[in-house]
Amino acid sequence: MKLWDKGISIDKKIENFTIGNDREIDLFIAPYDVQASSAHAKMLNSIGILSKEELSQLIEGLEALKQQINEGTFIIDAEFEDVHSKIEYELTKQYGEVGKKIHTARSRNDQVLVALQLYYKENLEILTEKTKTLFSTLLQLSEQYKDNLLPGYTHLQVAMPSSFGLWFSAYAELLIDDLHLVEAALKTVDQNPLGSAAGYGSSFPIDREFTTKELNFNTLKYNVVAAQLSRGKSERTVAMALGGLANTLSRFAMDVCLYMSQNFGFISFPDELTTGSSIMPHKKNPDVFELIRGKCNKIQALYTETLLLTNNLPSGYHRDYQLLKENVLYAFEDLKDVLDIFDYAIQQIIVKEIDLNDDKYKYLFTVDNINTLVEQGMSFRDAYKKIGGEVSDGSYVPDTSKKHSHSGSIHNLGLDKIQEKMNQL
Amino acid sequence: MKLWDKGISIDKKIENFTIGNDREIDLFIAPYDVQASSAHAKMLNSIGILSKEELSQLIEGLEALKQQINEGTFIIDAEFEDVHSKIEYELTKQYGEVGKKIHTARSRNDQVLVALQLYYKENLEILTEKTKTLFSTLLQLSEQYKDNLLPGYTHLQVAMPSSFGLWFSAYAELLIDDLHLVEAALKTVDQNPLGSAAGYGSSFPIDREFTTKELNFNTLKYNVVAAQLSRGKSERTVAMALGGLANTLSRFAMDVCLYMSQNFGFISFPDELTTGSSIMPHKKNPDVFELIRGKCNKIQALYTETLLLTNNLPSGYHRDYQLLKENVLYAFEDLKDVLDIFDYAIQQIIVKEIDLNDDKYKYLFTVDNINTLVEQGMSFRDAYKKIGGEVSDGSYVPDTSKKHSHSGSIHNLGLDKIQEKMNQL
Amino acid sequence: MKLWDKGISIDKKIENFTIGNDREIDLFIAPYDVQASSAHAKMLNSIGILSKEELSQLIEGLEALKQQINEGTFIIDAEFEDVHSKIEYELTKQYGEVGKKIHTARSRNDQVLVALQLYYKENLEILTEKTKTLFSTLLQLSEQYKDNLLPGYTHLQVAMPSSFGLWFSAYAELLIDDLHLVEAALKTVDQNPLGSAAGYGSSFPIDREFTTKELNFNTLKYNVVAAQLSRGKSERTVAMALGGLANTLSRFAMDVCLYMSQNFGFISFPDELTTGSSIMPHKKNPDVFELIRGKCNKIQALYTETLLLTNNLPSGYHRDYQLLKENVLYAFEDLKDVLDIFDYAIQQIIVKEIDLNDDKYKYLFTVDNINTLVEQGMSFRDAYKKIGGEVSDGSYVPDTSKKHSHSGSIHNLGLDKIQEKMNQL
Amino acid sequence: MKLWDKGISIDKKIENFTIGNDREIDLFIAPYDVQASSAHAKMLNSIGILSKEELSQLIEGLEALKQQINEGTFIIDAEFEDVHSKIEYELTKQYGEVGKKIHTARSRNDQVLVALQLYYKENLEILTEKTKTLFSTLLQLSEQYKDNLLPGYTHLQVAMPSSFGLWFSAYAELLIDDLHLVEAALKTVDQNPLGSAAGYGSSFPIDREFTTKELNFNTLKYNVVAAQLSRGKSERTVAMALGGLANTLSRFAMDVCLYMSQNFGFISFPDELTTGSSIMPHKKNPDVFELIRGKCNKIQALYTETLLLTNNLPSGYHRDYQLLKENVLYAFEDLKDVLDIFDYAIQQIIVKEIDLNDDKYKYLFTVDNINTLVEQGMSFRDAYKKIGGEVSDGSYVPDTSKKHSHSGSIHNLGLDKIQEKMNQL
Repeated sequence: MKLWDKGISIDKKIENFTIGNDREIDLFIAPYDVQASSAHAKMLNSIGILSKEELSQLIEGLEALKQQINEGTFIIDAEFEDVHSKIEYELTKQYGEVGKKIHTARSRNDQVLVALQLYYKENLEILTEKTKTLFSTLLQLSEQYKDNLLPGYTHLQVAMPSSFGLWFSAYAELLIDDLHLVEAALKTVDQNPLGSAAGYGSSFPIDREFTTKELNFNTLKYNVVAAQLSRGKSERTVAMALGGLANTLSRFAMDVCLYMSQNFGFISFPDELTTGSSIMPHKKNPDVFELIRGKCNKIQALYTETLLLTNNLPSGYHRDYQLLKENVLYAFEDLKDVLDIFDYAIQQIIVKEIDLNDDKYKYLFTVDNINTLVEQGMSFRDAYKKIGGEVSDGSYVPDTSKKHSHSGSIHNLGLDKIQEKMNQL
Repeated sequence: MKLWDKGISIDKKIENFTIGNDREIDLFIAPYDVQASSAHAKMLNSIGILSKEELSQLIEGLEALKQQINEGTFIIDAEFEDVHSKIEYELTKQYGEVGKKIHTARSRNDQVLVALQLYYKENLEILTEKTKTLFSTLLQLSEQYKDNLLPGYTHLQVAMPSSFGLWFSAYAELLIDDLHLVEAALKTVDQNPLGSAAGYGSSFPIDREFTTKELNFNTLKYNVVAAQLSRGKSERTVAMALGGLANTLSRFAMDVCLYMSQNFGFISFPDELTTGSSIMPHKKNPDVFELIRGKCNKIQALYTETLLLTNNLPSGYHRDYQLLKENVLYAFEDLKDVLDIFDYAIQQIIVKEIDLNDDKYKYLFTVDNINTLVEQGMSFRDAYKKIGGEVSDGSYVPDTSKKHSHSGSIHNLGLDKIQEKMNQL
Repeated sequence: MKLWDKGISIDKKIENFTIGNDREIDLFIAPYDVQASSAHAKMLNSIGILSKEELSQLIEGLEALKQQINEGTFIIDAEFEDVHSKIEYELTKQYGEVGKKIHTARSRNDQVLVALQLYYKENLEILTEKTKTLFSTLLQLSEQYKDNLLPGYTHLQVAMPSSFGLWFSAYAELLIDDLHLVEAALKTVDQNPLGSAAGYGSSFPIDREFTTKELNFNTLKYNVVAAQLSRGKSERTVAMALGGLANTLSRFAMDVCLYMSQNFGFISFPDELTTGSSIMPHKKNPDVFELIRGKCNKIQALYTETLLLTNNLPSGYHRDYQLLKENVLYAFEDLKDVLDIFDYAIQQIIVKEIDLNDDKYKYLFTVDNINTLVEQGMSFRDAYKKIGGEVSDGSYVPDTSKKHSHSGSIHNLGLDKIQEKMNQL
Repeated sequence: MKLWDKGISIDKKIENFTIGNDREIDLFIAPYDVQASSAHAKMLNSIGILSKEELSQLIEGLEALKQQINEGTFIIDAEFEDVHSKIEYELTKQYGEVGKKIHTARSRNDQVLVALQLYYKENLEILTEKTKTLFSTLLQLSEQYKDNLLPGYTHLQVAMPSSFGLWFSAYAELLIDDLHLVEAALKTVDQNPLGSAAGYGSSFPIDREFTTKELNFNTLKYNVVAAQLSRGKSERTVAMALGGLANTLSRFAMDVCLYMSQNFGFISFPDELTTGSSIMPHKKNPDVFELIRGKCNKIQALYTETLLLTNNLPSGYHRDYQLLKENVLYAFEDLKDVLDIFDYAIQQIIVKEIDLNDDKYKYLFTVDNINTLVEQGMSFRDAYKKIGGEVSDGSYVPDTSKKHSHSGSIHNLGLDKIQEKMNQL
């Protein structure tokens, strides 16, 4: 046997290559495999393939594994290539032949599909909850700081007055849109693929409605070929949904980092949320928000990876699909952390007093000046000219008296309406 | 004035650079700008900024432009930078000062936002209809060819029996998932941004509920900063929704091209749907499906473009956003064509007789052989071993007698269930 | 014949679908098709397939077409599907049978390949020249403004002193890296594919070395299957090379837009390079740089499109490849404009006086203070502590006396070294 | 202190969030940090900041760490956030104050930059060597199987004769193009960034030419701001270079998987390189090549991630950049494995006899039939018509007599020329 560099034999190298880090990432889906195996066993009993006693044994064994998983003592040893073989091994070691029977009328393909979909479903629901928590925090901050004005920018140029009330609730309202995508992803994964076996179904008289009900799926992915084609397509949809939330949070984090710059100086954070420098004793860096931005940007890149892995491949399972799960699972874990930390950190925000009389902000109000003239009867074009002239000759005096009355404006934030929109989701 | 290569002055070059091809692509949104301008005018009248007479004139002018657009005689001449300035010019030319008044309390920013969202909304609905048409076609084909067996592949290796019934309805069922995303995109764009002006609202007492109702939007994007941040985010969501459909169609087209290869020989198409070669007189190439695949792949790439254009930019309008619309609009137009042509072409499919007795297919039925033995009482492991031995020693005889009874399987396609799922959308 | 919406027949619709906008974009490659056809004809004469007279006629005809193209009078009428059929038609109309002979021993596939590669090659060289022009401009600006200090930021926080000299020449030096990629792309496309025909070569005794020399290609893509596989791979490589330049320019433009913000106020531009607002009379927006940024971001997205179009497709031509050229050609045209306009606009920059005594900048020099203490014998850790303490208690006084002496630092920009690096390219 | 789910305190959660898995991935760059620290120490001695004795101690300590790394006993314990702090801690523990002095005149930023670039450089060279090994293997296989014909396809339709000789050497020749990109990436990373400190250089009189020579860099990245901007840009360039190789290997693997399908049946592999199925006893699946394809597709997706992480960020360090390294390092490690395994596996290929007399292949030779007629004096158009007629009426008899003589064709593969091209790289 030819030896490779570092003394690893080719066989070992190929084995590592094909297994990858499945042992590590499969820990995320272990509880869902136990859950689905349990449902599958009950169904097999219902159609007479497993006896009542066999079922009892399997359920007992699966419960024991579930407890190990919950307690953090379950590990996938080096001799198993994935969580599925580990679980089957444990059942067989404990109960003999019946442990092997659990694989009747299913294939590794639908076993992985169902476990992943159960993980996705539960975690999309967790993301929804965490998003709603952040949404509430943002509405509270919006209410709290509704009177704190903020320069509004277009083209990064000082444009018109905005406020912290507008800023916080803008991102809150966008989160509702992101939840539409999460909901679409939920509908996509909330369809039972179990029974599709290797992608062409089974000649055993299995009862797919039984497992659908048992696993609390909303419906079946009926067509077995469609169930198999969902591998990759589910990941793509999930990547889009996570990417939607990530997009909102990433852009919010960009604002935070910019507004913390001394040149804006609109906000700051307590020391424990900022980071110093090993060489500059004065630094207070927004590392937490930069890492939020960066992690969210990585999550947004996931979509391309899922596409490239599956694009132009004919229907039917391909081993490439094994590589889909890793970064999707990490994206879920990362995004849950990001939402927690964003929610925690944004509550510590220190909103600073902004001196809108500073020279650089004085033209914030030119549109209000114009509108006042228009309301007094001057045509818009003449008013624009008059104020433009005042700007040029230095005689301009800001008109800070105007109130915005319409829905969603500085002085009428409509937080109750935004809350209502979220409630109707 | 310094002259550039080809005798174009720098001013002209910069002008072309900033305008781009807006004149051409704005034709797609012209009718929606007219519609939104009309609603805005009515609202201005309702709050006393326009008189009844002024409103009548503007409505008359807008109706005339609408007719030009419908008749295809509306063009955006070279002296206008976009459709919006063209329309305002026409109204002013015709009715004088009142033409200029229509821009009161709005900005180019919310004017573009509302027109694009109206376009997106209508075209997402058109895509939904066209998708449902294709869905019906596929269910019909599935029913028609439900008894035509097809080898099923995993890893591109002959695996287990499939059928044309399964193949057609698999893609039908996946289209339902795609419509979940279209629906999410619809919810996202079905929120009135008008009144957000340059992204910070207006000090005029505008009535945003009025235009919401007039334009038949489901709700408002309340927060004006959120409305502005939707630019780019809407396009990203739309790109995902279009990408979902494109993904399904692209992979379907790959199957079509592969199955047409002489090495599969499962299907063919009439001559008018294939293309010859200038040097090979025997060729019948599936160009239509290759172009469907390619166009769908381009549509899937759009998401990355929308991300790169907006990523990490602080809130507030940036001129970069002007570049978002071009490829999104073309993606809509392309995808509508793709759906029409796919639906037309797939109906012409010629399903060929496949000789499953051919040597290369004989192992399609090994799992059925095994299952028969299991049903006769042999353990799965022994049955697997026995059939494996027969395969090795050449004594294997396929068991083609088995019927699949479960939901979504070859002999129980569940087309009514799939139809029902679509109906519940 | 079933009629479609808008009264377009299905045949017409499919024809439009398959042709796309080739007629428009093929104008970019028309001169290169003429050039390659000319070389091919000469080669056919050299191996006895065309007589001397036939060659003369074809050369005459091709020269006439070349002139039309140069004069801008060449158009691809609606009855031709692309530039190649148009040219062959013109030759045949003029000279009869010999016009048809030019297609001997070639196929549309290698005809398109060679024309595209000639376009890519010439335009990569143009991009190199334009990049060198911008590089020189930036070095000049660096020299001109080498004494103008600029706050340096990390994490968008005021960090240490920088300068306009550093800023301009940083982007200059990065352009050299981008040219390494352009050079790699040049090497990739500078290989003659002509003679690969449909991807499997020709049984005519063609002389590929002849056309290689005639077309001034550096070498042949010998293997005909490799030549065909280059379709897509060339575009991918070109997209990366263009993306490299686009990346540098996009990030430079971001700095420009940020530094123009009133909150930084480091630079401005003359009025003719900024844009006003229809509602805010005080606005001077950096639209040109925003559009540079946006167009460069679109160019960076092109890579994903080329990948998705070709990924996982088996070797051999597929019609999908027709869709590759459009956005690559537009990316070239856009990037040439971007480089011209960047070079023109950056020369108009107005570098403003920055008051580094402003409170927000006062900690720029803390590292210099520390280094002074270290040079006086104090340990770094003690010095860091001492200056940190002064920052805290408000007694800190910036030490602005230090000079940076090392290569590439504020006071030793090393512009000659950077120029030398470019020269060695 | 508020407790989070799973009993993790918010502080701990934020700490984990900011550190990520740096401890694990930093093991890849540990030897390069030691190498660069050593060079930096020597330079500090050369300018009088470290005494000869201090230098000796540091070098001794670094050598000891280097040995630990080589022996695999070096670990980054949980109390260190990264490899850099671990190394500094070890030196200080061993030698006291002098351990702290090594950080004089450098910053974490340039320390990470230089270590990464040294890793990239060495590993790009390793990739080059492994690519050349695979190239040689492919040329050998091409020579070995030059007489084995293979159907050539266009549009996945049987087109013209090809051969295994052409197939193997096609991918070999493409690898040369990929090495142009690797070379461009090498030039990009082969520039010393050390001395750029936090991105604005140092006021210590450091000697950057010294470390450049000591670390065997080809040149300096002179401008310190450019050095800092290289973070992200280097990763993007490296991602492109790795993506180039990945692209070639991915497409090659697709051919392998397709040709192994029973419907093609052109090749197979020994059992130890294929994988069975848990339910289908007849399966021999090409998992190794599917995983090569999939891993290569993931590597191709890396480019988008690097772009999204850095796009539109202003110049100067941002913490987001910490997230760049993980997937780039894994991509290197994966691609090295892929090249090894591809090279090993492809040598085991079993080239099968293909019966070109099979009906489905009989039109492979129509172009050769036509060319024979043309050489006999018939015009191409008439010959095309005649052979087309024979195809239609079933009288067609393939002309398998023709030899292709031109460079890079079936019967003149030009392997020596392709080898020469590689040698000139």
